[in-house]
Amino acid sequence: MDLIIKNLGIESGGKPIVFLNVLDADELGVSASGRLQINSGRSLTVIVNIASVTVQKGYLGISEEVQKILKLEQDSVVDVQISPFPKSLQFIRNKLNGKKLTDKEIHEIVNGVVNGNLNENEIAAFVTSLHIQGLSLDEATSLSSSMVMTGKQLVLNSPQIVDKHSIGGVPGDKTTLLVVPIIAASGLIIPKTSSRAITSAAGTADRAETLMPVDLGIEEMKEVVHKTNGCIVWGGALDLAPADDIFVKTEYSLCIDPLLLPSIMSKKKAVGATHLVVDIPTGRGAKVKTIGEADLLAKDIIELGKRLGIYCHCVLTYGEQPIGNTIGPSLEAREALEVLMKTSQVPDLFDKACHVAGSIFEITGKKNGFELARDILLSGKAEKKLREIISQQGGQSEIKPFDFVIGTNTFEYRSVNEGQVLWMDNNIMVEIARAAGAPKNKGSGIIFNKKNGDKVSKNDVLFTVYAEKSPKLSRAEQILDEKMPMGIGDKMEMLIHRVKESPVVRRSFILDR
Amino acid sequence: MDLIIKNLGIESGGKPIVFLNVLDADELGVSASGRLQINSGRSLTVIVNIASVTVQKGYLGISEEVQKILKLEQDSVVDVQISPFPKSLQFIRNKLNGKKLTDKEIHEIVNGVVNGNLNENEIAAFVTSLHIQGLSLDEATSLSSSMVMTGKQLVLNSPQIVDKHSIGGVPGDKTTLLVVPIIAASGLIIPKTSSRAITSAAGTADRAETLMPVDLGIEEMKEVVHKTNGCIVWGGALDLAPADDIFVKTEYSLCIDPLLLPSIMSKKKAVGATHLVVDIPTGRGAKVKTIGEADLLAKDIIELGKRLGIYCHCVLTYGEQPIGNTIGPSLEAREALEVLMKTSQVPDLFDKACHVAGSIFEITGKKNGFELARDILLSGKAEKKLREIISQQGGQSEIKPFDFVIGTNTFEYRSVNEGQVLWMDNNIMVEIARAAGAPKNKGSGIIFNKKNGDKVSKNDVLFTVYAEKSPKLSRAEQILDEKMPMGIGDKMEMLIHRVKESPVVRRSFILDR
Repeated sequence: MDLIIKNLGIESGGKPIVFLNVLDADELGVSASGRLQINSGRSLTVIVNIASVTVQKGYLGISEEVQKILKLEQDSVVDVQISPFPKSLQFIRNKLNGKKLTDKEIHEIVNGVVNGNLNENEIAAFVTSLHIQGLSLDEATSLSSSMVMTGKQLVLNSPQIVDKHSIGGVPGDKTTLLVVPIIAASGLIIPKTSSRAITSAAGTADRAETLMPVDLGIEEMKEVVHKTNGCIVWGGALDLAPADDIFVKTEYSLCIDPLLLPSIMSKKKAVGATHLVVDIPTGRGAKVKTIGEADLLAKDIIELGKRLGIYCHCVLTYGEQPIGNTIGPSLEAREALEVLMKTSQVPDLFDKACHVAGSIFEITGKKNGFELARDILLSGKAEKKLREIISQQGGQSEIKPFDFVIGTNTFEYRSVNEGQVLWMDNNIMVEIARAAGAPKNKGSGIIFNKKNGDKVSKNDVLFTVYAEKSPKLSRAEQILDEKMPMGIGDKMEMLIHRVKESPVVRRSFILDR
Repeated sequence: MDLIIKNLGIESGGKPIVFLNVLDADELGVSASGRLQINSGRSLTVIVNIASVTVQKGYLGISEEVQKILKLEQDSVVDVQISPFPKSLQFIRNKLNGKKLTDKEIHEIVNGVVNGNLNENEIAAFVTSLHIQGLSLDEATSLSSSMVMTGKQLVLNSPQIVDKHSIGGVPGDKTTLLVVPIIAASGLIIPKTSSRAITSAAGTADRAETLMPVDLGIEEMKEVVHKTNGCIVWGGALDLAPADDIFVKTEYSLCIDPLLLPSIMSKKKAVGATHLVVDIPTGRGAKVKTIGEADLLAKDIIELGKRLGIYCHCVLTYGEQPIGNTIGPSLEAREALEVLMKTSQVPDLFDKACHVAGSIFEITGKKNGFELARDILLSGKAEKKLREIISQQGGQSEIKPFDFVIGTNTFEYRSVNEGQVLWMDNNIMVEIARAAGAPKNKGSGIIFNKKNGDKVSKNDVLFTVYAEKSPKLSRAEQILDEKMPMGIGDKMEMLIHRVKESPVVRRSFILDR
């Protein structure tokens, strides 16, 4: 059917969608959420929306996304056909009905996701099926590979590329800001991509952004790594594993993450990682609640890595309270810088960074990794390296702790009794920091005076909330009126234990959690 | 946050959606597919799309749907807040994780679906979960009730209201066009709503539409029933169980139907049915393949009916070939009229109609239902009743068989060998009829000369394809070049058997198929 292009000038969040008059839709035999093929030079599959007023019979309303791909002129005529039933949808239905998917089938699905050939309903059904039915190691491997194959890749000419990842869930975790320079200073190559906060008070990209630009393109990233051995850039604009970005959106909206491991691995594979250490913060306040659960996850990660050619170790770390003494992008970046400059001692952050960096050293064949990491940090080489990276990414390499702009509206939260800090509630801490403006207001957040195990006297300041804007401070105070963010307990070491390769291969490998 | 209204003039298929500039979204802390509450006189929850060009910072782009509900003036200012996390989403997540839902929880979900409070992803995840996890009888009951409660209802002042439904899947099934007038002629009240074809060659509404208008409102429908005891109207515009219409769209796109029974029952309950006969066409070519499967389904229907206060029987009918000798809206309506007028004998259609109508008579306490139905049909009272209904619905009550406009482009499909018809492929027959233009071109379809068990000589015409437009006939011929629609076998009676109330209540009631 020939239709006249009408650019509606609307955006549809990356998906190529069109609006079709109900009469034309009827004639073509397509319904809402159905698929059409537009043939105009190249051919594009688009998802159909039905209109009865906006788009008149004989017209095809297109979104900015379609315009961007096909570059169609207003009032030009295109040929439109009903799209053949995508094979990928049949495969999604198979998974929905409990069948295991082959590598080829998964590749077809991932392709359909990236090309916009599958609609939102179908992607949500796929993600839901993976959550309920679980996914096998084979399927997880195929998903990782397919997500890499359908995106851009960073190609560095190096036989050994290392990386680190944290499962997340613990606030204040600025470990990456220490680990990357330690590793890069040792001569190993670490092309670190990281994310911005979605539900947390700061992502690594948010923290790093207070030191330097992080919105680099893939070629710029390559250049920085070439010159400094490392980088800390935002992964969101690099188009590495774009399918993953789409899956993550769906997972986020449903609060499930069946694709957690393929997601991590695809991003690491896309930057060419050969060695990877995954940090699994563990504890009541973290994403992974128990050591048993963390051990299972660690084994899955190690097995999946093996299949993808990434040698992995996992470190299970103490995740029952924030890492270090700060939450919020600027406060955290400043704290990391102070530890690198040795102007401040933050034992748990120091310990965690040296364990993670040390594990990276050990999986690449070095001995006494923790000591090696600690020595690089204490020697000042890590600080020097971070400043090199800042400079190469376009930041002020001479940045000093007092350069960070911190919110001037403050509120001190004091103890009403005495004792020892027994517990801290990570979720409430994040809620307070977000209410105060983090991560958007980079200078908002929390500084802790007391943490788990610390002795506390009556009326001691437990922590101080910082906000750039005073109404936001009031919102944070309001939360503190209603909720209890801290209790009393015993101090602990950071590292619970470390998982190396799993000696026994389990028979029924199910990643489903 | 105060935002300026910008009506984008686009339709979003019934769902209230808005477009928000990425900066404002960030400020509000909402992401794509998230929920906002617009407060302007009344408050409305809307689903968020993110724009960066279309909608500038400080503006709120709204769809026609939002405009229709809130009646906002261009450039007026509204207060917009992030919507609280809907409880219904928590309940969907519970189902996703295998928990059984309570009546209250299901009601909350159904409400969320109808109010537009749940986005497409979430509805797809719910439907997928129901498909994989199954639903209990309690859940099915709650779903049916909630779907009724969130829609309009037909209120007739009668202690006994009967209805019929077919599970479908067999082409050429014009049984309803005979059953409604037989029942109405007997004095029973049968307010029949029916659907249009989605994937089939004709729905009952498509067939009936060649006799009379079927797009009646609920008050008009009531009037027709009041005057004639029956009606045959399209259910799509009545707003009975609107949640069901939304679920069905999602199910259709995923080719699953976990809500099949709640869907049927909600529509019946909404018209106030007290007695219901459900036809389950059974056989290799039908939706339900085996008698065992049909029996299980029948028991579920009967149990669910019991809980909802609808007394149900099921009839399992032969579904391995089309019903009667025609497929296509006009051809089928003409055939039904001819049987009512006794100008044509169609034994399987006659048999099926009398069994279904007879079962309705028997569940309302009459004896020898089949004979009663047959007598009404043969007496001419059913024909007279249909003409009354046609007249009341605004059609030409004097319509004669030769008044139907049938496509003049025809193609005869002939036998290449001799024997007996062993089988007919329902799916291929539908594909041919649809290629020829049905259901859109009402005069397109198929007339059969031979059916299962019939003796066939070489070169006999097996069936003739009719198309209103000649290119469509060519498409149908093309399918016949590639596919084999018929084989050879033994004639059978229509009724396999009839299921009355299940004597034993099964312990683990799972509707999941």
